[in-house]
Amino acid sequence: MSLAAPDHRLEQALVDVTRLLEKHRVLTALTHRQEGPKRDLLEQLQQRQNLTELHARVNPLHPADLAHVFEMLMPDERLLIWQQLEGRQRGEVLLEVSSAVRESLIETTGHDDLIAATSHLDADDLAYLADALPEEVLRSASRQLDAGERSWLDQSRAYGKNSVGGVMSPEVVFIRDDQTVDDALVHLRQRGELPPQTDRLFVVDARNVLKGSVPLQALLLTDPRQPAAAITSTDDVVLRPDEEAEEAAQAFERYNLVSAPVVDERNKLIGRLTVEAVMDFNRHLAEQRALERAGLRKEEDLFASTWASARNRWPWLCVNMVTAFIASRVIGAFEGTIQELVALAALMPIVASVGGNTGNQTVAVVIRGLALDQIQGQHTSYLIYKELMVSLLNGLMWGGLMGLFAWLIYDRPALGAVMMGAMVLNLLLAAMVGIAVPLALERLGRDPAQGASVLLTFATDSCGFFFFLGLAKLFLV
Amino acid sequence: MSLAAPDHRLEQALVDVTRLLEKHRVLTALTHRQEGPKRDLLEQLQQRQNLTELHARVNPLHPADLAHVFEMLMPDERLLIWQQLEGRQRGEVLLEVSSAVRESLIETTGHDDLIAATSHLDADDLAYLADALPEEVLRSASRQLDAGERSWLDQSRAYGKNSVGGVMSPEVVFIRDDQTVDDALVHLRQRGELPPQTDRLFVVDARNVLKGSVPLQALLLTDPRQPAAAITSTDDVVLRPDEEAEEAAQAFERYNLVSAPVVDERNKLIGRLTVEAVMDFNRHLAEQRALERAGLRKEEDLFASTWASARNRWPWLCVNMVTAFIASRVIGAFEGTIQELVALAALMPIVASVGGNTGNQTVAVVIRGLALDQIQGQHTSYLIYKELMVSLLNGLMWGGLMGLFAWLIYDRPALGAVMMGAMVLNLLLAAMVGIAVPLALERLGRDPAQGASVLLTFATDSCGFFFFLGLAKLFLV
Repeated sequence: MSLAAPDHRLEQALVDVTRLLEKHRVLTALTHRQEGPKRDLLEQLQQRQNLTELHARVNPLHPADLAHVFEMLMPDERLLIWQQLEGRQRGEVLLEVSSAVRESLIETTGHDDLIAATSHLDADDLAYLADALPEEVLRSASRQLDAGERSWLDQSRAYGKNSVGGVMSPEVVFIRDDQTVDDALVHLRQRGELPPQTDRLFVVDARNVLKGSVPLQALLLTDPRQPAAAITSTDDVVLRPDEEAEEAAQAFERYNLVSAPVVDERNKLIGRLTVEAVMDFNRHLAEQRALERAGLRKEEDLFASTWASARNRWPWLCVNMVTAFIASRVIGAFEGTIQELVALAALMPIVASVGGNTGNQTVAVVIRGLALDQIQGQHTSYLIYKELMVSLLNGLMWGGLMGLFAWLIYDRPALGAVMMGAMVLNLLLAAMVGIAVPLALERLGRDPAQGASVLLTFATDSCGFFFFLGLAKLFLV
Repeated sequence: MSLAAPDHRLEQALVDVTRLLEKHRVLTALTHRQEGPKRDLLEQLQQRQNLTELHARVNPLHPADLAHVFEMLMPDERLLIWQQLEGRQRGEVLLEVSSAVRESLIETTGHDDLIAATSHLDADDLAYLADALPEEVLRSASRQLDAGERSWLDQSRAYGKNSVGGVMSPEVVFIRDDQTVDDALVHLRQRGELPPQTDRLFVVDARNVLKGSVPLQALLLTDPRQPAAAITSTDDVVLRPDEEAEEAAQAFERYNLVSAPVVDERNKLIGRLTVEAVMDFNRHLAEQRALERAGLRKEEDLFASTWASARNRWPWLCVNMVTAFIASRVIGAFEGTIQELVALAALMPIVASVGGNTGNQTVAVVIRGLALDQIQGQHTSYLIYKELMVSLLNGLMWGGLMGLFAWLIYDRPALGAVMMGAMVLNLLLAAMVGIAVPLALERLGRDPAQGASVLLTFATDSCGFFFFLGLAKLFLV
């Protein structure tokens, strides 16, 4: 028995694969050094033997481990291993790798090979890959499905990746509500192996309408002569295909589910959602959002080309450039004031920067509140009041401290007072923008965290400069 | 059967609870308006009846739903419901609410009530609450555990919240490797209900050494006369209590696990980890990090007091203040230059801001690479090369564009050239810092995303000002 810690088998695989790849590199370099007919037969033989060894090492790996190995390698190394994979394993790897790697593998593989890789996949795997595969490949690969599976595939694609319908699986095991436990067990034995993550059988009537579910453990623990109806639990969470997958994921967490049935509008059983699919969905969503928040248009492979990486970052840079330009024009309007008191130029970034940071703290609190549904009608005014009070307190305290520094450095008490005033104003503004922007984005159905930080920084920069230079113009010069 | 979409029962509960709370508020206002003996008996009665109704509505709720309701209410409303809860339900709610709400509930509840709330909890629930409960309460509550459970509780606390030992559960169902399937089934029926998320029974020998596991579905599908050993799977993922919970969570995702055994250094079975615990851990970690990245010291309740919220944000503000102050002193060193050409003051924030944004994009790519183990020895130099090339490309392109604007606005071509030069330099610096900082933080065992953005912005601000004003001093004035 392999009493392995989870990462050990992966580590071992990686060590072996890296060694074989390194050997391949050395052998290739050696054979290339020698010219035409003088090529060393022995070395060619070694080369071939090395590839056979690589073939034997990578094909039996768990597809998830192999996918992890793929992520860690440079594009040319990925391709070398890819060529050693058998069709079935290629299909499994395509399911497990990140979308950036998947795209590059699909790009470099011919249609016939792609069809060989995907033609053993079942309907929900194909649905998962559908957008990435060329239409011709998808059509050929889905030819091996039966009519029901094919129509399931089309439906599932229509629901979209972020709905329950897009992440559900068609593999449901059900029993009829008029069966006994014994009937159900016989039925199961005839059927053979159950799909992974089957913790319950769904119970349906003659018209496939869902009646409830029977946990596997109840089947094990009950007298087999009882009717299945006696151990059917009827208060399960039931999902609909057009619900958001994110909400379904929350239900899985809240009620500790392993699987849940999906039904259509007439309560007929059409699929199920598993905790595995939910975890994949959660991770994917989190990664996607992390990248988007940093302003990357889409998932970017670390080993993507310079040109592709640069372009992936342009839309954000462009927005940033525009907002920075506007903030710069605010300063430009006060050039006369700065000319008279150049200390203002040195101090103004402090006001802008502290405003941006406190605003982002407010945004974080608001986003957490949105996730917990804490922000309802009457609570919003409380929230605004509180964040403004926090800003006032922090503005007086930290603004006062910075004002003191300004006074001491430039020996002008009035400059300190202007500094403190500008900081209080900018922190109050930051609180209001930090509340308003995520709420507005949420109402528009956008990710509140992504756009919020750009808009917020834009406001706190521009207004920070404006408050500080404006007050200085009024009271100092 | 309740064919409810997951959120409907929660919504209904919330509507009802809100209505009852509103009624309570109105009735309280009414009785308070009338003086001493004139208090209306009828209204007092209504008040009491209303609370009874609230009691009857909240106690049967699923603790996870009730916890969600708690999160959404103001502190005084929470307290009112809390007072209506029975001891057992209070304990369950404490397990489900966020740590901020948990703290406030524990603070406002007497020790005796806390003991009543927690004394039915089992060892792993108590382990989860241990740090939040007063020591005296924990001691009383753990008195009902047997000696084995108590020592388990102590051990689990010693492992810490982020290790497998800290999130595992002691509820393991095991069979002996010399039993037949039929023996195992008899054993299970005697035992009665299995713990939630039991998808497999663990197989141990006479000395409790783990031999493998039997999936429930194999028990259902196999001829009962077979020895258990025949259907024991031996290539399971096996965890150790001192491993990081985050790594175990990755193994759950990778291999689609529902539960996994935890063994000590002699391979003896000491507990198990469930996908439920993994999902809770993942969510908690993600929330924690999101708040930390925005510079909140710890989880902050939306309804926490102004003073508590303000203090929660100070450490970060303090750091921010120091870095902003240093950047300001960099500008201060060039006051003479700015005096001569005041346009510099207006343009310098653009250089700093664009540098910060591109650097954060690099940080996002590096953090994703770290999560995927993509950044190994020989890849680091490739990564550095590539990010520098991306920066050079973006710097020339967008820096050129900004330079053009500067030239047009101020009618000085040399100013445009200085602008472009400073942007190229600052973007190159941003790329290097954006790679170095997360790698260094990762090596120090810190969350690479949190500290990275402060340090990065500090570098790109200070150096952005330095590059731009320095070049201007050399070539313009």
